[in-house]
Amino acid sequence: MAELKNDRFLRALLRQPVDRTPVWMMRQAGRYLPEYRQTRAQAGSFMDLCRNTELATEVTLQPLRRFPLDAAILFSDILTIPDAMGLGLRFAPGEGPLFDHPVRSGADVAKLGVPDMEDDLGYVMDAVRSIRSALAGQVPLIGFSGSPWTLATYMVEGGSSKTFGKVKAMIYDDPDTAHRLLSLLADAVTAYLNAQIQAGAQAVQIFDTWGGVLTPRDYQTFSLDYMARIIDGLIRQHEGRRVPVILFTKGGGQWLEAMAATGADALGLDWTTSLGEARRRVGDQVALQGNMDPSMLYASPERIRHEVEALLNDFGPGSGHVMNLGHGIHPDVPVAHAQAFVQAVVELSPRFHT
Amino acid sequence: MAELKNDRFLRALLRQPVDRTPVWMMRQAGRYLPEYRQTRAQAGSFMDLCRNTELATEVTLQPLRRFPLDAAILFSDILTIPDAMGLGLRFAPGEGPLFDHPVRSGADVAKLGVPDMEDDLGYVMDAVRSIRSALAGQVPLIGFSGSPWTLATYMVEGGSSKTFGKVKAMIYDDPDTAHRLLSLLADAVTAYLNAQIQAGAQAVQIFDTWGGVLTPRDYQTFSLDYMARIIDGLIRQHEGRRVPVILFTKGGGQWLEAMAATGADALGLDWTTSLGEARRRVGDQVALQGNMDPSMLYASPERIRHEVEALLNDFGPGSGHVMNLGHGIHPDVPVAHAQAFVQAVVELSPRFHT
Repeated sequence: MAELKNDRFLRALLRQPVDRTPVWMMRQAGRYLPEYRQTRAQAGSFMDLCRNTELATEVTLQPLRRFPLDAAILFSDILTIPDAMGLGLRFAPGEGPLFDHPVRSGADVAKLGVPDMEDDLGYVMDAVRSIRSALAGQVPLIGFSGSPWTLATYMVEGGSSKTFGKVKAMIYDDPDTAHRLLSLLADAVTAYLNAQIQAGAQAVQIFDTWGGVLTPRDYQTFSLDYMARIIDGLIRQHEGRRVPVILFTKGGGQWLEAMAATGADALGLDWTTSLGEARRRVGDQVALQGNMDPSMLYASPERIRHEVEALLNDFGPGSGHVMNLGHGIHPDVPVAHAQAFVQAVVELSPRFHT
Repeated sequence: MAELKNDRFLRALLRQPVDRTPVWMMRQAGRYLPEYRQTRAQAGSFMDLCRNTELATEVTLQPLRRFPLDAAILFSDILTIPDAMGLGLRFAPGEGPLFDHPVRSGADVAKLGVPDMEDDLGYVMDAVRSIRSALAGQVPLIGFSGSPWTLATYMVEGGSSKTFGKVKAMIYDDPDTAHRLLSLLADAVTAYLNAQIQAGAQAVQIFDTWGGVLTPRDYQTFSLDYMARIIDGLIRQHEGRRVPVILFTKGGGQWLEAMAATGADALGLDWTTSLGEARRRVGDQVALQGNMDPSMLYASPERIRHEVEALLNDFGPGSGHVMNLGHGIHPDVPVAHAQAFVQAVVELSPRFHT
């Protein structure tokens, strides 16, 4: 393996000194880039692109050719695990992901098993190996998975949802079935992230996109406890380095203390939480990642730069911050605005690290 | 005016002793009730129903005939003010509200004025007077309005939105125009709620449905400051009683201290915040309203009753709590489950008030 030339991202996640604040963007390989849209058209469907090692590698690297980013993130989908479990994932235009075989009962859960990481999900590991090799040590590679709760919402609802009525009916009325499903998913996510680490991922992020729709008690019971179990089971040391784990619950700003107690190295924040307040609340237990409103990229480059400065000031001096958006970049933002965001971090952050 | 026979709701909002916890449900006059669907079919469009004094009175009273609720809420829409400003409100099937003339520029804002409360919004005041008279003192009547920020999101986006890209581009890139719009809306909402109070509303609620999509700083600047200005301008004493004001920001759980400082009498909470923690944070500054997950009404009556008990325990003994859902009731919940929710509050709450 090529030696890592830029470890700013990994160091910041472990709150070790850095020369400037590292930066990447959730969904940085995405539709806002014309070259992504071209590769995507070439690949066929979204899942065809995920399964094509060469093209998945290509789109992962595209944003790094444009911007001085400090990390690459595996190009894949959060629903690869339920797809590998045989639920029949489809993407319907304008409807988002759909499962042909949703999980609605204990009998449905009993039919499911942990997928084989090479037989069923080998295309993901192939992508990790290929991207890692193509990166040639330029920046570290982030692996990722959806959280058990987030995967369960799609599996039980059969797709996206506004009210989460079916999956909530399950946790409220048939919690045993919900726990069996979440337990299986926790095992699958643990195996999946460990396989990604063994294939070359140098950090991993757990995306709990829908943890924020739960009550505080249910968040702990049905989402956070399973993420804590996953973190306990992860390979934390690989290739002679610590593999940092980032925990991101969208809408989780009220629960940072509990999230920090899971053993994660860093917490991802959405833009509804102040970085400075979050830092005061978690102390030096964890690093923080985030949290510019992705809609700020609709504003002018000058305004974006001003916001980057405000965020850097809010976190304050010292290591322990990875700049990012608070959620994935929107597909219709101008490329020049993404550029302005990254460039502002590169130019303005060194004075916070002396 | 008939004497008020049940003032439990008004007393709890002012943290005065009550015999049991009062209860109502956001959107209690709604599609989950078969008699509502029948009246709605008779009326024509949704706005036709809002404009028909007799039928708006009828649907307001329907849930009170079924359940021992402690308050009625004016049947109306949150977008009556922008409609009265001439934006051309329509409801497209499956798309929600749409405005034919969205507000996109300073020139668009300059064309707008505060509507006349009797000429332009007289149908709302007629409904308030009619409902108040029909209630005959059974329970108090709640008036309401959308918050300036929430109204602005629909006016600038031209309808519902997922990313709020247009209205955020306005606050980020052209804050002066945004402030002119919000200031005008604050004047309109103040006049609107005061007209409702003079027509007979005995408490008012400000619905800030979309305040939770903002950063902490922008929430303060673009939403909360305008709500505080409204509260300052409201009639607080009418018919010899205090008119309590309830402030509800969905997703505002991180900002309760700032919300309590506006002078509101009570804060509405969604289900992501613990009632007990919220009470500790706001002390005896304000009462609290909420906060059962509306999706809990998909669960069995036994489970619903158990949750009501958990919420009562979470708030603890003493006055200052109005039981409610954390958001509007979903249209597809069984009526018997709504019944179970209200009944459980009636039966289980007296022991918290001795």
